[in-house]
Amino acid sequence: MSDETDTKTGVTRRDVLTGPAKGALLAGTIVAAGGGAALMPSPAAASASNEVAPGDLDEYYGFWSSGQAGELRILGVPSMRELMRVPVFNRDSATGWGHTNESLKILNENLLPETKEYLAANGMQTYDNGDLHHPHMSFTDGTYDGRYLFMNDKANTRVARVDCSFMKPDKIIEIPNASDIHGLRPQKFPRTGYVFANGEHRVPLINDGTNMDDVANYVSIFTAIDGDSMEISWQVMVTGNLDNVDCDYQGKYAISSSYNSEGATNLPGMMEAEMDHAVVFNIARIEAAVAAGKFEVHNGVKVLDGRKGSDLTVYIPIPNSPHGVNSSPDGKYVMVNGKLSPTVSVIQYDKIEAVFGGADPRSCIVAEPELGLGPLHTAFDGKGNAYTTLFLDSQMCKWNIDKAIRKYAGEDVDPIMHKTDVMYQPGHNHTSMGETKEADGKWLVSLNKFSKDRYLNVGPLKPESEQLIDITMDKPEVVHDSPTYAEPHDCIIVHRSKVTPDSIWKRDNPMWDDARAQAAADGVDLEEGSEEVIRDGNKVRVYMYSAAPTFSMEQFTVKQGDEVTIYITNIDDVDDLTHGFTLGNHAVCMEVGPQATASVTFTANRPGVHWYYCQWFCHALHMEMRGRMLVEPA
Amino acid sequence: MSDETDTKTGVTRRDVLTGPAKGALLAGTIVAAGGGAALMPSPAAASASNEVAPGDLDEYYGFWSSGQAGELRILGVPSMRELMRVPVFNRDSATGWGHTNESLKILNENLLPETKEYLAANGMQTYDNGDLHHPHMSFTDGTYDGRYLFMNDKANTRVARVDCSFMKPDKIIEIPNASDIHGLRPQKFPRTGYVFANGEHRVPLINDGTNMDDVANYVSIFTAIDGDSMEISWQVMVTGNLDNVDCDYQGKYAISSSYNSEGATNLPGMMEAEMDHAVVFNIARIEAAVAAGKFEVHNGVKVLDGRKGSDLTVYIPIPNSPHGVNSSPDGKYVMVNGKLSPTVSVIQYDKIEAVFGGADPRSCIVAEPELGLGPLHTAFDGKGNAYTTLFLDSQMCKWNIDKAIRKYAGEDVDPIMHKTDVMYQPGHNHTSMGETKEADGKWLVSLNKFSKDRYLNVGPLKPESEQLIDITMDKPEVVHDSPTYAEPHDCIIVHRSKVTPDSIWKRDNPMWDDARAQAAADGVDLEEGSEEVIRDGNKVRVYMYSAAPTFSMEQFTVKQGDEVTIYITNIDDVDDLTHGFTLGNHAVCMEVGPQATASVTFTANRPGVHWYYCQWFCHALHMEMRGRMLVEPA
Repeated sequence: MSDETDTKTGVTRRDVLTGPAKGALLAGTIVAAGGGAALMPSPAAASASNEVAPGDLDEYYGFWSSGQAGELRILGVPSMRELMRVPVFNRDSATGWGHTNESLKILNENLLPETKEYLAANGMQTYDNGDLHHPHMSFTDGTYDGRYLFMNDKANTRVARVDCSFMKPDKIIEIPNASDIHGLRPQKFPRTGYVFANGEHRVPLINDGTNMDDVANYVSIFTAIDGDSMEISWQVMVTGNLDNVDCDYQGKYAISSSYNSEGATNLPGMMEAEMDHAVVFNIARIEAAVAAGKFEVHNGVKVLDGRKGSDLTVYIPIPNSPHGVNSSPDGKYVMVNGKLSPTVSVIQYDKIEAVFGGADPRSCIVAEPELGLGPLHTAFDGKGNAYTTLFLDSQMCKWNIDKAIRKYAGEDVDPIMHKTDVMYQPGHNHTSMGETKEADGKWLVSLNKFSKDRYLNVGPLKPESEQLIDITMDKPEVVHDSPTYAEPHDCIIVHRSKVTPDSIWKRDNPMWDDARAQAAADGVDLEEGSEEVIRDGNKVRVYMYSAAPTFSMEQFTVKQGDEVTIYITNIDDVDDLTHGFTLGNHAVCMEVGPQATASVTFTANRPGVHWYYCQWFCHALHMEMRGRMLVEPA
Repeated sequence: MSDETDTKTGVTRRDVLTGPAKGALLAGTIVAAGGGAALMPSPAAASASNEVAPGDLDEYYGFWSSGQAGELRILGVPSMRELMRVPVFNRDSATGWGHTNESLKILNENLLPETKEYLAANGMQTYDNGDLHHPHMSFTDGTYDGRYLFMNDKANTRVARVDCSFMKPDKIIEIPNASDIHGLRPQKFPRTGYVFANGEHRVPLINDGTNMDDVANYVSIFTAIDGDSMEISWQVMVTGNLDNVDCDYQGKYAISSSYNSEGATNLPGMMEAEMDHAVVFNIARIEAAVAAGKFEVHNGVKVLDGRKGSDLTVYIPIPNSPHGVNSSPDGKYVMVNGKLSPTVSVIQYDKIEAVFGGADPRSCIVAEPELGLGPLHTAFDGKGNAYTTLFLDSQMCKWNIDKAIRKYAGEDVDPIMHKTDVMYQPGHNHTSMGETKEADGKWLVSLNKFSKDRYLNVGPLKPESEQLIDITMDKPEVVHDSPTYAEPHDCIIVHRSKVTPDSIWKRDNPMWDDARAQAAADGVDLEEGSEEVIRDGNKVRVYMYSAAPTFSMEQFTVKQGDEVTIYITNIDDVDDLTHGFTLGNHAVCMEVGPQATASVTFTANRPGVHWYYCQWFCHALHMEMRGRMLVEPA
């Protein structure tokens, strides 16, 4: 720590930590003042290099949420370069995600009936926004297995799965009964298995407008999804609002932070109680209750009652609005981060069984170190140390778990090992392989909510910021700043040995099953296309293949008012040879990867000549890869 | 050059340049084999560092197109970090661009009537995709003036303007008569002034479906837009397809590359002729013709005839499908890049007047160096050197303009100074300040169409790639690889002294004029909100302000079936304190910057309790910043 004046803000670190600014952070609108470049080490001082030279490959995949941007991002770590955007909950211009028939099927086939009515009433093809917070990979035996990535949509109460062999979503489901899916984690052991998803907001279980004033009976809903089928296994209603979730390495428990034990609907009400909870879900007991028929079915889902007093759950008192929940890689502990309390509560997993047996709920807590202001999330290095983000202090606090336990037991030791300034206001953090039993202690990422003056001014909307921290050092140092759009909500850092995507699509991918079935009905092979359009009343189907630098049809003709479906199959089978199909002035733009099929449907009501072209650069004659749609006047 | 085997591909450089692979590049699907990491220098060998340490600011803004992703990007150069995404032609989940009333007004107010009919028939609120190729800044006296950025949409034939004070689009216009706007450049002198926009594809001028077979009379349309009003000043119909465009430093000419002089509609036809053209537009003559009434009005626009033989244009023969057009910073020359010819044709601007007077069209060509395979675009260092991308060779060729002219005049000199391998298949390139009279010769960016094995495998869809090249050295070296999504089509690199955006919105921004007018009619101040909803039949208006961490309304009530408009005004006036407004399960998500107003309209047909929340992290109690919309059953 230093009292040096930060040359950028004119505010000293001490001012922020002890002066009136600290109060303002809680009460008002001053959000970022501490830290500053003057305190930063130069990258040259770092012991591990984050340099990835041109042509060299990163050691890790980073799977990143984009918050309200609705997409998944794949980064390289430690270079922190964005390698790919994967549209999930967003409408994507480049790929046509949210507009192609294949993506609309995935987006819409598991929407609730009332959602479909809402979208129809509002002239929308699907939800075209999302708020993707937590991407996590499927596990087998406590570590990543490279099969799937799961992620939540807080905005429209959905969970999506991305297939890691082709890195696109293959299933998206809307969760009934719940309101706004927030925390999400896959089961670690024996495998995924369940995907646990927290419904954050409290609403009436029968949310039909007849009981809106009965706030006391609003509930939050905890959902277990079968990660293999993406069907909902069961739901549990709880007391309080659910926030984040993690699970153990034994397959016995999931544990969620829960705030607003007051059941309030406004800010002062939610702040009243000194203690809120961590809710522990007893998976065996819940499965037994399901088997015993102890549930009600709502919207086709088995819902169990896990509110306070139930034997399916225990509510462990935790100081003031706990937020992050993080299991240690040794499988022994789970950290519940205090948010409005300066503490992190350390729960020892093997003491939970006694609590289910009637012991004092807090008897499973074995440490509660006071780390600083605004502890939100904790990451691990696999060497017994933990790294907790301090939102208000704008710091990453490195602390030793064993020392924290000894201190809680009465020993005079200081568990805090170092505090690294970050810029500014960190939320989630994550270490390389840190949420698995293979945590390797190399890199820590701090996902910061504000960047302010850390980058060139780009107008009123500033980027947020993520920082790469070298944790091989005793005193971890920031080695790289990355701006990010929009909220860099959460991430995981996966060793590259765990992930082996395909480079060419497999022709039997079910994504274009409907296209294949329609082609078969029309007597067409998708891979060979059709020389003429196929007319079926006012429905017209156009089957083309693409091979650089041509589409198989140089032109086709339809009539004004026809409902036209265009199927494109990319028969090139060369790495990185993606084609596109853009139809001018028709809002049509699709990605068609090597050996993939994509299709789009629209009503052709603009008579005249309209060009289609390949928008994914494919060849020296790419610009000439095009053709004409001729629309005859009605 | 080297004959070393590239360890990644097993193909030697010589194989690619001279063997059968070269033929395959033109004829088939082999797209990237040459170059390779073995030939790359290590970054440590570079003379200028591209390292930007944590907390340090980049020296340059990069304004980047995203191709079919439809957005503008702001990068920092030389760090190559993406500082901000600016939604332009795309639907953006995070900001609500394409869904808020304010963005829909900008997107829709200048659409063609037939586009509005098409969108209505297809249940779309607006075009929600775009293909943004060429971002360029407004000029005054031959250099950037920091007022505006202009950019094209090839997919849906639009031109957009971004106001650099707040870095969002303020005007978007659809261009009538043209088909697919491709090349775009602002007038350099005396100021912008005109924005020149090339309609690439040839279509009937009256494109109503009555004359679709009359291919010989299809035309491409060159458009001059008034950069101050964003109204179309005039259009000129031309022979052939228009590709890229640039203009001089004297305000006399715009010059476009033109391919397909054959007027063909398929690939073999477009390849027939050995020579195509550069079309020079004589601005004074065109303005005089407009003043003299020598135009027809089509779709409200004055259209002049500039086809071959017109006195408004000259057609300078250029070898085989020329592509990029680039004026040198000294104002003397313009380079027309051969694409299918290995040459770049150097036109001397002050020799063009004679061509308009009847001289041989090629008399203005003063050099035509043979550089390599697939020359696409040329950039400049302001020191007399040019840098041309060689698409097929995957190289950047550095050459000396004066030597090229001397060689063309008969002197035995070699203009080629160095060839730098890039990975792979470069399209556009750009140097720092290189399209202005202040070209400074520090950095060159190569925008590559393929990345193949340069990054971790992320599935069938690979990133494209941009590389940063240090051109302060005699032999320029690649110092950084950046993956990019989707096509990194084009960019400009602007010294940071040229751009001074606001950090807080000005309350008098016209973007929310409609909101202000409606609020005034309702007797409401946007900044103070309304405690109750305002009902007007089944239309309900909700006026809230936001101040971290609260919305001014904790709840509001509407009836099922109401058309609800929610206005949010962010009264916080702190840097980087953006709020958001997300309404759960209603596909509503808006950015509301400090001192900005945003609004959204929807039909509320889901009875029950629905939470809205702030999705742009604003405060330690951000998660509690929310409220309830109660929808009473009908």
